[in-house]
Amino acid sequence: MGNLKRFGVSLNSDLLTKFDKLIDNKGYGNRSEAIRDLIREELVSEEWKSGNKETVGVFSLVYDHHESDISQLINNIQHNNLNIIRSSTHVHIDHHNCLEVIILKGKSKEIKKLTDQLSSTKGIKHGKLIMTSTGSGLT
Amino acid sequence: MGNLKRFGVSLNSDLLTKFDKLIDNKGYGNRSEAIRDLIREELVSEEWKSGNKETVGVFSLVYDHHESDISQLINNIQHNNLNIIRSSTHVHIDHHNCLEVIILKGKSKEIKKLTDQLSSTKGIKHGKLIMTSTGSGLT
Amino acid sequence: MGNLKRFGVSLNSDLLTKFDKLIDNKGYGNRSEAIRDLIREELVSEEWKSGNKETVGVFSLVYDHHESDISQLINNIQHNNLNIIRSSTHVHIDHHNCLEVIILKGKSKEIKKLTDQLSSTKGIKHGKLIMTSTGSGLT
Amino acid sequence: MGNLKRFGVSLNSDLLTKFDKLIDNKGYGNRSEAIRDLIREELVSEEWKSGNKETVGVFSLVYDHHESDISQLINNIQHNNLNIIRSSTHVHIDHHNCLEVIILKGKSKEIKKLTDQLSSTKGIKHGKLIMTSTGSGLT
Repeated sequence: MGNLKRFGVSLNSDLLTKFDKLIDNKGYGNRSEAIRDLIREELVSEEWKSGNKETVGVFSLVYDHHESDISQLINNIQHNNLNIIRSSTHVHIDHHNCLEVIILKGKSKEIKKLTDQLSSTKGIKHGKLIMTSTGSGLT
Repeated sequence: MGNLKRFGVSLNSDLLTKFDKLIDNKGYGNRSEAIRDLIREELVSEEWKSGNKETVGVFSLVYDHHESDISQLINNIQHNNLNIIRSSTHVHIDHHNCLEVIILKGKSKEIKKLTDQLSSTKGIKHGKLIMTSTGSGLT
Repeated sequence: MGNLKRFGVSLNSDLLTKFDKLIDNKGYGNRSEAIRDLIREELVSEEWKSGNKETVGVFSLVYDHHESDISQLINNIQHNNLNIIRSSTHVHIDHHNCLEVIILKGKSKEIKKLTDQLSSTKGIKHGKLIMTSTGSGLT
Repeated sequence: MGNLKRFGVSLNSDLLTKFDKLIDNKGYGNRSEAIRDLIREELVSEEWKSGNKETVGVFSLVYDHHESDISQLINNIQHNNLNIIRSSTHVHIDHHNCLEVIILKGKSKEIKKLTDQLSSTKGIKHGKLIMTSTGSGLT
């Protein structure tokens, strides 16, 4: 895990005031914890840019299942990419609307390609991707 | 939770030998723990027989998503019963086969009616229901 | 998929009456569909007996998360078996009770060993396994 | 659903070229589909700002389950908010790392409060929220 190091950060006082307010609202215990989260976020973001690193994504889709054959279509697209899909969870929100949440593990470029394809499918109301991480590069 | 009581059980020695072997295989620490599980199982079973008690079911379906419009059909049936479905998880097993696991909470007779309907849908290869419990009647 | 064959079945009339009533209650369209399901069920059951065939299980656990460190324990046991766990879904039933549903894919004897270990963990109120199938041996 | 209307959009040609390239990469069939998605995204974003509208969120957490009692802690926090949690799915990524994906339905300010609390919990490596929608305000 590595040992704990300490370093100083210089910051404009206005920016620091805003940052302190933000981390207080979010419930962080101190600035270091909040800074650590920013750094991890940046590392995850870099992991995704490379395209070829093994990473983890969570993709959410909202759609109306009455739209022609959309359930069938979404299921077929997923089966053609089953090597990068871990599981998907479906919540029946109301009589019309479905939420489907797909957990993906694979190269970031493959995940992006699949989620772009799903997002642009006719009948999808809202599609959104969380780019997260296997955690193995984060401590 | 109630306090712990102790009572004796008389048993044919052959039956006891078999029971001890069984609970040893299953990894129980002692007979009381194994007996408690049998009693809880019986209570859950009674809860389900009554038909009108609020309970919890887990239903698994295996099907080939290439079969005509089966994904669409299964999704529609679930939306017509969304008051008793908590969520469903889908695993894409191979290019043909899907596993769908539905978590249900409601009256046992409603759960049975829905899962019978799903099981007897054309194209379903294997449908099976776990009758479990909200846990509130078990200690 | 193979082509459709037809064969005759002789049955005691009383047994047939009971069977017809049962399949009518369950919503089957005809006897052949119901018989097909019985045969598949038997095939799945054989698949599980062999111990070494790749198969699929769905395991449900009900427990009170206030019981000492049970969430931690269950999570640790699962991580030690991550090669056969596909995903697990957690539903918070009430302030005390949790339902956890684990989807497993692997050799039946490995799945049984793990689910026996989880069932016999102190604090588990109800543990139950669906023995289902990858679907690849069923048509 | 409302009927289809058509309106014109004036755009700088450079911007249009970039936009066309973007939607082509993402696989959209035409500009209108891509514009519809942008408008829906804006509507979802407004829904979340209001704080009091019923909406849907998907929250992902990555953590090392060996960290003291983190599984227990996360489970307890969720049970204290069970009215807004629909289900959560857990994937055991490797021997150390867990991914937990929580599906939330409730007022956006309640969802944000809970997910901020979870994100700032000691031991969480990466927490991220998708703000999506029940779909009922989107067509």
